[in-house]
Amino acid sequence: MHIARFSDGDDTRLGLKVADGLVDLTARLEGAPRDTVDLMSLWPDLALDLAALAAFPADHALTGVQLLAPVRRPHKILGIGMNYADHAREMGLELPTSQFWFSKQSSALNDPFGDVEMPVGSIELDYEAELVCVIGRHVRNADATGAREAIFGYCVGNDVSVRDRQTETSQVMLGKCGDTHAPVGPWITTADAIDVADIAIRTWVNGDLRQNSRTREIIYDCVRMIEHLSRVMTLEPGDLLFTGSPYGVGKGFSPPRWLQPGDRVRVEIEGLGAIENKIVPAPIP
Amino acid sequence: MHIARFSDGDDTRLGLKVADGLVDLTARLEGAPRDTVDLMSLWPDLALDLAALAAFPADHALTGVQLLAPVRRPHKILGIGMNYADHAREMGLELPTSQFWFSKQSSALNDPFGDVEMPVGSIELDYEAELVCVIGRHVRNADATGAREAIFGYCVGNDVSVRDRQTETSQVMLGKCGDTHAPVGPWITTADAIDVADIAIRTWVNGDLRQNSRTREIIYDCVRMIEHLSRVMTLEPGDLLFTGSPYGVGKGFSPPRWLQPGDRVRVEIEGLGAIENKIVPAPIP
Repeated sequence: MHIARFSDGDDTRLGLKVADGLVDLTARLEGAPRDTVDLMSLWPDLALDLAALAAFPADHALTGVQLLAPVRRPHKILGIGMNYADHAREMGLELPTSQFWFSKQSSALNDPFGDVEMPVGSIELDYEAELVCVIGRHVRNADATGAREAIFGYCVGNDVSVRDRQTETSQVMLGKCGDTHAPVGPWITTADAIDVADIAIRTWVNGDLRQNSRTREIIYDCVRMIEHLSRVMTLEPGDLLFTGSPYGVGKGFSPPRWLQPGDRVRVEIEGLGAIENKIVPAPIP
Repeated sequence: MHIARFSDGDDTRLGLKVADGLVDLTARLEGAPRDTVDLMSLWPDLALDLAALAAFPADHALTGVQLLAPVRRPHKILGIGMNYADHAREMGLELPTSQFWFSKQSSALNDPFGDVEMPVGSIELDYEAELVCVIGRHVRNADATGAREAIFGYCVGNDVSVRDRQTETSQVMLGKCGDTHAPVGPWITTADAIDVADIAIRTWVNGDLRQNSRTREIIYDCVRMIEHLSRVMTLEPGDLLFTGSPYGVGKGFSPPRWLQPGDRVRVEIEGLGAIENKIVPAPIP
């Protein structure tokens, strides 16, 4: 099942992505929530109704609505670095022996087709195509089974990164959490509907293919991530885990190929859809 | 003015700290919100009423209520490292030339007198007494004046740190965001009611004085922090900035003096009050 958040004018609604568009959950399901996190908590009661609705014809064409980030406001957006074997090779680095985590911030969340800001005073703006794991329940100290059960689904993300800020200190965080720098979408594909072990992940900049890999290059998979993180903290419904990016980021080219205002970055993951974001200058201070 | 969140049985309320206890804002002010962030948005309309209520006798003795974290659920909890000149000297380090930021997580938030968990599998649990700056409005690309105006107030915090996790990779984050590892309180003192430029900051462990410094040792003050951070991202009402810790953390002793279950850590800042947290074993997986 593919669950989208969308805006129909002023109104924010949930929809099911079907072949020809969106089935409007908010209109068709009495008491249907308007945020994905609320839907998660009602899941056991709604799953049968949702399955039935997934066979309906679309109420909205995709071109007639604005797709929104599929979670309204996550508590946490965490990212793992250096988690593709091919990316480690590209950077000339050893494979990691522990999970390298940093934090994005929820204020960085962006819609799947929202504009991405080129920060004032920075020149090294970069893309990172990422599979994003969406947490569906509260989980602490999970074993492998608990970790698997905590995954609600997956979506596409671009871990937009400002390399000059990222390297200002040893902590990459300030290079990872600029406003608009976490576009995700276009919808959440539930975990039962996709096997993410070996799917294609690609980035195009202005139609030029830059990243072209497969998730089988991932070093620590989502289950191991959740086991590791949940030993430190409670993961919560709606939390987003950015699971690392393959080879081909702008920083990896010689010379580096930074993003510029006007560029269009498209990230596509097989079975999950695509997001596309235009780079625009940030508001002037 | 000192604004507290407290629980009176099942109910969560806001109060004004006065000499002999708390004036109950929720009972005495029609339409008064129950969260500090909502109070911030109503501030211009409520300021006069609040000033009048601050002269009332207390409705509750402090011993009769449970004080809660003064913000219910911040979007961001950010921390700056190595921001006291005396702490840098203690660690044998040069003074920083740029602001060293990391992220705690909002799931780490704890009440001023809540128990702090000793994580399973870690032994290096440490305290860090910190002045916490509470953001009061949305702010982006602030100059010094805008930064000053964005400060709603201050409270006391303990940036509880798990040193063995903090040093597992180059990123300190996973050592900073354990559940319960961000106790704050006991209330927010509004910015107009305190000058934080040179006030005493102290930590006791089981009555033994461990940190004893003054905020004049701070290298980057709150205004400079907000200028720096707001160039990267929008700061929002309720966001908490942990502003760094002075010399005397457990890691600074030789041998280090880690916290143990049963220990009581008290952090006090002149004019802002004190928080005290007992170390308890984390729930067994």
